[in-house]
Amino acid sequence: MEKSFYFDHAATTALDSRVFEEMVPFFLKSYGNPSSIYSLGKESKYAIDIARMRVASSINCKTNEIYFTSGGTESDNLAIKGIAMANRNYGNHIITSKIEHPAVLNSCKSLEKMGFKVTYLNVDSLGRIDLNELERAITRQTILISIMFANNEIGTIQDIKEIGRIAQKYKVIFHTDTVQAIGNCTINVRDMKIDSLSMSSHKFYGPKGVGVLYIRNGINFVRQNDGGHQEQDKRSGTENTAGIVGTGKAIEIATNELESYNEKLKILSDYYIREVSNRIPNIKINGDLNNKLARKQ
Amino acid sequence: MEKSFYFDHAATTALDSRVFEEMVPFFLKSYGNPSSIYSLGKESKYAIDIARMRVASSINCKTNEIYFTSGGTESDNLAIKGIAMANRNYGNHIITSKIEHPAVLNSCKSLEKMGFKVTYLNVDSLGRIDLNELERAITRQTILISIMFANNEIGTIQDIKEIGRIAQKYKVIFHTDTVQAIGNCTINVRDMKIDSLSMSSHKFYGPKGVGVLYIRNGINFVRQNDGGHQEQDKRSGTENTAGIVGTGKAIEIATNELESYNEKLKILSDYYIREVSNRIPNIKINGDLNNKLARKQ
Repeated sequence: MEKSFYFDHAATTALDSRVFEEMVPFFLKSYGNPSSIYSLGKESKYAIDIARMRVASSINCKTNEIYFTSGGTESDNLAIKGIAMANRNYGNHIITSKIEHPAVLNSCKSLEKMGFKVTYLNVDSLGRIDLNELERAITRQTILISIMFANNEIGTIQDIKEIGRIAQKYKVIFHTDTVQAIGNCTINVRDMKIDSLSMSSHKFYGPKGVGVLYIRNGINFVRQNDGGHQEQDKRSGTENTAGIVGTGKAIEIATNELESYNEKLKILSDYYIREVSNRIPNIKINGDLNNKLARKQ
Repeated sequence: MEKSFYFDHAATTALDSRVFEEMVPFFLKSYGNPSSIYSLGKESKYAIDIARMRVASSINCKTNEIYFTSGGTESDNLAIKGIAMANRNYGNHIITSKIEHPAVLNSCKSLEKMGFKVTYLNVDSLGRIDLNELERAITRQTILISIMFANNEIGTIQDIKEIGRIAQKYKVIFHTDTVQAIGNCTINVRDMKIDSLSMSSHKFYGPKGVGVLYIRNGINFVRQNDGGHQEQDKRSGTENTAGIVGTGKAIEIATNELESYNEKLKILSDYYIREVSNRIPNIKINGDLNNKLARKQ
């Protein structure tokens, strides 16, 4: 049998075995419902608290600014629709880019059907939005800017800090989809003035079916899933304890090993580009080689 | 250390070790994204197809009538809001009961804010709705009846077959929350004329963070999570392969062992009621002892 190589870590990753080890007890032994008041339930609650601390610490926010969801798609939906609906009295205009993930683009399209106006910014040949164009697009009706941290197909990283600065200048809420960036880029929501941010565990060696939404305290948003009072009443449903525990461990590893991981990816990327270029004529690389995931120094 | 006993299987169950064994390979080895076209992705897709067949077979529906979600709460939200929004042109009235799970009640309350009218039926001292009252509540504006199969606190089982008959007579869509009933009751959506049904895996020894929504072909509903085209474009987001595989295995076990499980529960329940009644004066049992979960013959 031929050996096969997996080249699609942007689509999903395997679970890190260290993450798996931390998850196992919460399937078989510590299975209590975190909403229960007896010890077995409190064990789960405590494990979720630890995971929440790990996630909060990785992006420099408070623990009560972290909401666990079922994935990046749900996080983007909850952020974009939830913020838009809660802030409708302040305006009905949203700015995003044409190269966002479908979770963002299709959430915006749903909002358009509800009367919101959406500006879809162009990107240049390297995949970057024009910051002047962004600034010009802001009107008195603009309530939300949603620009992804790094693109899921060509890997281009946007100038998030500058976008955060512009959003703050005009008092517009700034959401960024960091699904593809977590584990590759250092993200500090305070420094970068990020108000809202989505993650997906399975992109950084965590489990599928778990996501994270960070929303800064003070930003109003409407929950999308109605039911029990989990996640500060903002996301109903019994918590996926094992998945949340795995997410906490995965992001801790991703943060601790960010530098060595990027070094390894840079070597692999250099090798891959060199070999492909040598063997196949007329190669064109999409995206910005100097500002791209897997090529961070 | 004293031995402790877990008496809250209505809140959640431990994962069955046989379920866990089936899930493990999808964490560490078969981790491909089911939306991918290469073999590793197809492996995941195939495993999800098997799980879908197992779930469909357990309630006697077609595989393309099954949608995987992140839990019972999401399933109830997607069913109730999704059906209400898609059928708004036919009417704006919904009938439910006062003792539904918050996932149903709060979804209905959200719809009320959007202009829908909701009738909340009373229940009698045993926890059952009055079928005549249900029939009288139906108007030409009624588009949806949502009545739970069995209650999550007192275990009372409703006359689902009769509710299905009434709903069909008046051409109203019938959704039932079976979160608490799966694994205890035989459910046949064709016989019972159920149009839509929600489940939560962790209630029948499956994993937390996975749910199922059955919606009969021909019933229109609007997706709530926008994004990619997963689950027939009705529920976006990368599939939780391991969780879905576990759900398939858990429901297969629940179906195969339904009879012996209920026999065991009946013995435990008889013993518990007898001992508690003997030791504590003036015991009153809530619900209907002859028509209650854990007391099925």
